[in-house]
Formats: sequence, C-alpha cells, structure tokens
Amino acid sequence: MAEETTEKMEELVEETTEAPEKTELEVAQEQLEELENKYLRAVAEMQNIQRRANEERQSLQKYRSQDLAKKIFPSLDNLERALAVEGLTEDVKKGLEMVQESLIQALKEEGIEEVATDGAFDPNFHMAIQTQPADEDHPADTIAQVFQKGYKLHERVLRPAMVVVYN
Amino acid sequence: MAEETTEKMEELVEETTEAPEKTELEVAQEQLEELENKYLRAVAEMQNIQRRANEERQSLQKYRSQDLAKKIFPSLDNLERALAVEGLTEDVKKGLEMVQESLIQALKEEGIEEVATDGAFDPNFHMAIQTQPADEDHPADTIAQVFQKGYKLHERVLRPAMVVVYN
Repeated sequence: MAEETTEKMEELVEETTEAPEKTELEVAQEQLEELENKYLRAVAEMQNIQRRANEERQSLQKYRSQDLAKKIFPSLDNLERALAVEGLTEDVKKGLEMVQESLIQALKEEGIEEVATDGAFDPNFHMAIQTQPADEDHPADTIAQVFQKGYKLHERVLRPAMVVVYN
Repeated sequence: MAEETTEKMEELVEETTEAPEKTELEVAQEQLEELENKYLRAVAEMQNIQRRANEERQSLQKYRSQDLAKKIFPSLDNLERALAVEGLTEDVKKGLEMVQESLIQALKEEGIEEVATDGAFDPNFHMAIQTQPADEDHPADTIAQVFQKGYKLHERVLRPAMVVVYN
C-alpha cells in the first residue's frame, strides 16, 4: 500500500513537471523575444513622440502671431476709418499713415497679409454681406466692393474680407 | 596507446567546453539583462523627450506674441507722438486714442504690458539715456522722465523703457 502511494505520487509529479512545463532556457528565450518586441515598440513610440513634437513646434512657430494679429485688425480698421475722414490736416494724415504702414509692415514681417479682393469671389477668403445685380461689365461672382479688409497668415485665413458680390 | 589518446582528447574537450564557455541559459539570461537595461533606458529617454517637448511647447505658447509685439511698439510710439501734437481737432484726437487703446488692449490680452516707471530706476527694466542731478525732492536712482515706454511679456522685458535718471 505504501509502495503504491509512492508510485502514484511519482506519476503525479512527472505529469505536472513534464510537457506543459518549459525548460528554464525556453522560458528565458521567450522572455527575450517578448522584451525585444517591447523594446522595439518603445523605440518606435519614441520616434513618434519626437516627430509629433517637431510638427507641433513647427506649427506653433508658424502660427505664433495669429492671436495677437487678430486683435490688431480692429486697430487697422479704425485707422482706415480715421483716414477716410475729410478735412484732415496734412500732418495728421501723415501721422496716421505712418502708424498704418508700420502696423502693416509689422504684420507682413510675421507672414500676415491682406486677402486679395481684386479677383473672383472665393468663399474661402471672402464673406459676402450683400449682393448687387451683375451686368455686362460686372460678371456674377466678382467682388463689387470691400467693406472690411481680410487677412491671412500663410495659407490660413485669420479674418475673411467682408465684401459685396455681384450676382 | 589508443586508449590514452582517447582519454586525453576527452580531457581536452571537457576543458574547452567547461569554465570559460557559458551555457545557453546563461547566455540567454545575460542577453535578457542587457535588453532589460536597454529597454529601461529607452523608456527613460522617451519620458525625457516628452518632458522637453512639453516645456518647449509651453514656452513657445507663453512667448508666442513677442516677435509681432516688438514690431508694434514703434506704431505705439508714433501714435503717442501724434497725440502730443498741438491743435488736433477733437475728432482726430478721439480717433487716435481709439487706435492707441485698441492696440494696448490687444497687447494686454496677450500678456504684454508697459514697464512701470514710477518707482526706482531698475536696470532690468529701464535704460538710462541721460542723468539729472538729484536733490532733496528727487533722490538718486529715481526716474526723472520717460523718453520712450518699455514693454514686458510676463516677466520677460521685450523693450526697456528709455529714461532720464536722477543721480
């Protein structure tokens, strides 16, 4: 009876340590493979982070002036209105123009320019606030009048030009 | 003789495969350790890149308006000069003040403010372009007059104020 028990136990031990159990070397090799994949993923992720950071930095640099610029447009509008007043003395006019030019120059140096309004109406750059009947000299979808100038920074529109369109 | 040779060869084989040679398991374990270090370094490096990118982004955001702002200061100087001209009509004066206020407001919203000049002279914020003798009412190292306003963005001076100092 005692011998039988021992035999059964031996069988049991053999069963649990055999087939399903891997050798230490196999375990180590599996771990190695797993870790190698983890490492490669980490390197790929690192390159992704670096790339995204570079893209973000470039974009931030490129559009860095847009917020301040947007806030300056009303000043330019005011200057334009002031310059349209009749009866300004030459001195005052000159002074206003100097301020205007220096602001436009400052914006230009940061990549901000007026939206062109001398061609066809383009909803990407212009906002139609009124229409006017087209005729032979004025084809439909061309700009009749500019109410307020628009501005863009590189290809990005910061403020569309407010225009009257022939239609 | 033949037996002796065999014995010697066995000894030789044992010598070369023993001590200096590592088992496959040992090699795998060493590789595991090495790779683990490599992986941990990659993770640390990744965190560094992420941290640096965040810092850089924050700094770019914080100071994004400084370049355009610097270019706008001369316009503000011109406006101030224009407003100092005598004999302006009320309308013109109002118009100039409106432009001035809207520019100052735009800068303020971006964190840019005038450098204070009502206290002691501070070389971090002021540039002395002239001196004036101090007296009982005007202690040394205080500001006598402001020639040109200075501006700062958060704690960073974008342009020092040009002042006359008592000394």
